[in-house]
Amino acid sequence: MNEFSLIEKYFTWKNSDLDGLGVGDDCALVSVSSQQQLAITVDTLIEGVHFPIDTTPQDIAYKALAVNLSDLAAMGATPWYFSLALTLPSIDEQWLKGFSQSLKALAQQHNIYLIGGDTTKGALSITINATGMLRKNQALLRSGAKVGDNVFVSNTLGDAALAWWQIQKQQIPSTSLLAQFNCPQPQVKLGQALLGIANSCIDISDGLEQDLSHILTHSKVGASIDINALPLSAEVTAHIANTQDWCVALAGGDDYELCFTAPKTQMDAIQLIAEKLHIVITKIGIITEERGLEIKGLEGGCQSYQHF
Amino acid sequence: MNEFSLIEKYFTWKNSDLDGLGVGDDCALVSVSSQQQLAITVDTLIEGVHFPIDTTPQDIAYKALAVNLSDLAAMGATPWYFSLALTLPSIDEQWLKGFSQSLKALAQQHNIYLIGGDTTKGALSITINATGMLRKNQALLRSGAKVGDNVFVSNTLGDAALAWWQIQKQQIPSTSLLAQFNCPQPQVKLGQALLGIANSCIDISDGLEQDLSHILTHSKVGASIDINALPLSAEVTAHIANTQDWCVALAGGDDYELCFTAPKTQMDAIQLIAEKLHIVITKIGIITEERGLEIKGLEGGCQSYQHF
Repeated sequence: MNEFSLIEKYFTWKNSDLDGLGVGDDCALVSVSSQQQLAITVDTLIEGVHFPIDTTPQDIAYKALAVNLSDLAAMGATPWYFSLALTLPSIDEQWLKGFSQSLKALAQQHNIYLIGGDTTKGALSITINATGMLRKNQALLRSGAKVGDNVFVSNTLGDAALAWWQIQKQQIPSTSLLAQFNCPQPQVKLGQALLGIANSCIDISDGLEQDLSHILTHSKVGASIDINALPLSAEVTAHIANTQDWCVALAGGDDYELCFTAPKTQMDAIQLIAEKLHIVITKIGIITEERGLEIKGLEGGCQSYQHF
Repeated sequence: MNEFSLIEKYFTWKNSDLDGLGVGDDCALVSVSSQQQLAITVDTLIEGVHFPIDTTPQDIAYKALAVNLSDLAAMGATPWYFSLALTLPSIDEQWLKGFSQSLKALAQQHNIYLIGGDTTKGALSITINATGMLRKNQALLRSGAKVGDNVFVSNTLGDAALAWWQIQKQQIPSTSLLAQFNCPQPQVKLGQALLGIANSCIDISDGLEQDLSHILTHSKVGASIDINALPLSAEVTAHIANTQDWCVALAGGDDYELCFTAPKTQMDAIQLIAEKLHIVITKIGIITEERGLEIKGLEGGCQSYQHF
């Protein structure tokens, strides 16, 4: 059983007086006034599962907040505040200093405030709960993709997964791959810029194949993407040439880029956003009426990342 | 170094456009409109630290939510929604079923909604982030105690601590002690009833001595309490008679009752609240100008519960 069916089976209670998204999108939405909604997300990082055992406290703090910012980004929300639940095996002042400085730097960069937390003793684990703000009914959802939409991704795919693959094989990843693994840039400004332009959006934390499939399922559509259109770094391109291992790009997870769909009429607007934000946005396919995800040019399949 | 100085040293950043409580009260407060504030709290429970290894999933779920509801209670907030970060060593459907049923039952009892969560693989740990609603500037704070206020506690002290003490000594606690340990009743209705009546309030999760001291520190006052006025169950009374161990009542922690202060003029109002809610509220002392906590009738001292 994977994480998704686990959550859905036991923890999806119907909440009639909330906005009803419950578990499913990157964030839950809660209305606080007639104009405003909160977008709320929570992510736990565990040593040895979500980051290697010798990761620096700076990188751990960065990633713990960044993955939550990425969830806010996927909804187009403006970051507002977060809480920190920190479980530590022991108190190490140097570690705490590095952790808190890095957390504060990323928080300030995105104008999100630490409001409180809890510290406990145990195996190293960090749970951050982040809340953002949205104008009501503006949120980017997984369920809005329309037949004929173009499918886009930001920047490149598979860099973090390749770094993790190398680490597990006792290889030392390049600085740029490690940066993508440890310090993924949450696409907060991109998400906000896509409000009113994209029909659906998700962050690629579990791999393109799985995350795009969530959009397709929730939107009740299909998609056809071109394997040769995927934006890849030189290192990932070389890795795939050597190994035929497309999984790093399709199913590796931890990319924290955005995958979104938008009507063809929005091509120019999206190009302008890319230029303004100095990021690369690549069209990788289209939304189709026929259900399922077709990956043109891929021989064999891929298995997305599962926590269990 | 204890939990409090740890948090204060590294994670108290000043957030000028929030309501500024940051870390310190039971909840952080965030204004969402000119009339309303959110009260937000987070608590992590770890197997072997906050509950014994063979605790049932029902009791774990209950306690994980109850301790957060208790934080909302301490501020007088009305519970609204919560998220769940659940770390599990493996997937056990029976365990999950028991956990989710118990969580849902307590959530429904207090009209609080599960909005989302995250599940990860690792040592058993539960982090709940709960949000409540308050009318602006109504929150019960630690900082409002006034010289001359009476000091009160709800129900009895030390039952949970005595249960834990017995478990650690391989004894089997009585059903009523175990119920106080595993299923503390969060005093949500009491907190709400005290709005406009109490000057300060805290929940007794770390022991009366430490938690009342937080009120005194934040309010810049002292208190004098009478050891013989403390409300104790028959079992705790017998334990103290046998062992002279006042620590279970003063410093045991995990009581999740409320300690609050109120002007003498509110005695009748408080008596009415106790009757209406069918709880016992006991006056245990008064707030004094002289700083520090005087415990009349106690010989020797006590050490409150510390996570580290």
